[in-house]
Amino acid sequence: MFTTSHTLAIVGLGLMGGSLALALKKQNAAQKIIGITRSHRTLDTALQRGAIDTASDQLTAARDADMIVLAAPVRTILNQIPPLADIAQDKALILDMGSTKREIVNAMNTLPERMYAIGGHPMCGKEVAGFEAADDALYQDKVFVLTPTARTTPDALNTARALAETIGSRVIELDAKRHDQIVAAISHLPYVVASNLVATVNAQANNDGLLMQLASSGYRDTTRVAASDVNMMLDILLTNSENIADLMRQYSRQFAELADAIYDEDEPALREFLEHTASLRRGASLPS
Amino acid sequence: MFTTSHTLAIVGLGLMGGSLALALKKQNAAQKIIGITRSHRTLDTALQRGAIDTASDQLTAARDADMIVLAAPVRTILNQIPPLADIAQDKALILDMGSTKREIVNAMNTLPERMYAIGGHPMCGKEVAGFEAADDALYQDKVFVLTPTARTTPDALNTARALAETIGSRVIELDAKRHDQIVAAISHLPYVVASNLVATVNAQANNDGLLMQLASSGYRDTTRVAASDVNMMLDILLTNSENIADLMRQYSRQFAELADAIYDEDEPALREFLEHTASLRRGASLPS
Repeated sequence: MFTTSHTLAIVGLGLMGGSLALALKKQNAAQKIIGITRSHRTLDTALQRGAIDTASDQLTAARDADMIVLAAPVRTILNQIPPLADIAQDKALILDMGSTKREIVNAMNTLPERMYAIGGHPMCGKEVAGFEAADDALYQDKVFVLTPTARTTPDALNTARALAETIGSRVIELDAKRHDQIVAAISHLPYVVASNLVATVNAQANNDGLLMQLASSGYRDTTRVAASDVNMMLDILLTNSENIADLMRQYSRQFAELADAIYDEDEPALREFLEHTASLRRGASLPS
Repeated sequence: MFTTSHTLAIVGLGLMGGSLALALKKQNAAQKIIGITRSHRTLDTALQRGAIDTASDQLTAARDADMIVLAAPVRTILNQIPPLADIAQDKALILDMGSTKREIVNAMNTLPERMYAIGGHPMCGKEVAGFEAADDALYQDKVFVLTPTARTTPDALNTARALAETIGSRVIELDAKRHDQIVAAISHLPYVVASNLVATVNAQANNDGLLMQLASSGYRDTTRVAASDVNMMLDILLTNSENIADLMRQYSRQFAELADAIYDEDEPALREFLEHTASLRRGASLPS
């Protein structure tokens, strides 16, 4: 259990940071939460909703915290780590919640020995961004990946694990390189596939005004993630580009074979492929 | 309003035919419903649930109906139309609910002049097949496409329209060729994209046992339609193959450009593309 004696700074009060603050408050699991973000409007709203105890638009406010959670898009986190080398107090623990981990762990490895750091990635999200979408149940029953760094002691790992479990998550420990390969397949590839589908269908819709009226739940669900926050997704694509581009090539090769089988009306090949993929999808244990 | 004097034969009592029977019974909108399917178990269940009044495993039982609804996969419907030329009574109306329309309308055009026929396609479905999944609200607030044939009189069109409206659907009249082009984009392309994603991700999952544990709602939704009934989807792909293969080529060209932009880390191009697709997806008016 996460002890209630911590003073936390949460840097970034969007969907992820805001939901973390609300979830910790609901569990009464922190002595004090310092909210840090540029937007005064967000700080005011977070204070009003009781998500944070004090508010600042300066990263230097993190100096009062013994645990600092970085909850911005990946490249913003990468910019925040170097200044924390001077700002954070001795023995402070830095945890981030960015969606790719290799570049962040590399940056954390350069922090001074007087502080601790660990990478984190909660496997949850929504297609809506910002504190208004924050939800104290966002992390409930979700996987929270922790990626150790050169600055992760057993105590640091335990503290991060306790925080994740306090907000209802299940922890999986993973090295950063393997994490980035896995999420390229399970998260980033679905995003580019969905976005590309929106673009292709839109080109057709421009030729036929009735087309979108016939769209049903299949198109809706297949393209849902294409509405994700673009700034967040750009940072992901640009910090995991090799893994994603590699998987896109594999996807394309398979797709070309499938298109040939359809054009050739090769029923045995199509049946074998589609029965395999349908059975994989039906058998998959996925979050509700 | 659909008059209650009709005797309907519903041929095929899976999700679509079963839901139609239940919806008509709920509205008390038919004098008699004859259920026709090969499976005696399904016929028994449908009788027990009060979805049908009489049951038969023979298409010839449709001779007692003044309206015959064909609710099987497309190629089964294509096999049922020619024998109906001898079976159906004078002035009977044949309506089908198959997912592609060009080949079905061509087959209907060859029916004798003593009967009427019109193509139909309700834009709804689930990833579960069979009468057990039937739902009297399946058609509520959904689009029901009607595609006229050489055997469609104004009266025949009005009767089919009344049936669709009685079960809560909104009718859109469309020619069969245009229908097949539209659904290739809005329904069949999402299916092959999702199935191909399942195959690509599975190849990665075979290399890393943890991969599927990190799958979240994004992967779940993007791949949902890959679990669709394979027999139904095969019939669709094989009766709309040119339109689908053509769209798959357009999708592939766009996808290759996107992969290049990611590999090259071309931020301005990526931002422009993703902001466009995100804004299209957010602005789309899709069924809830």
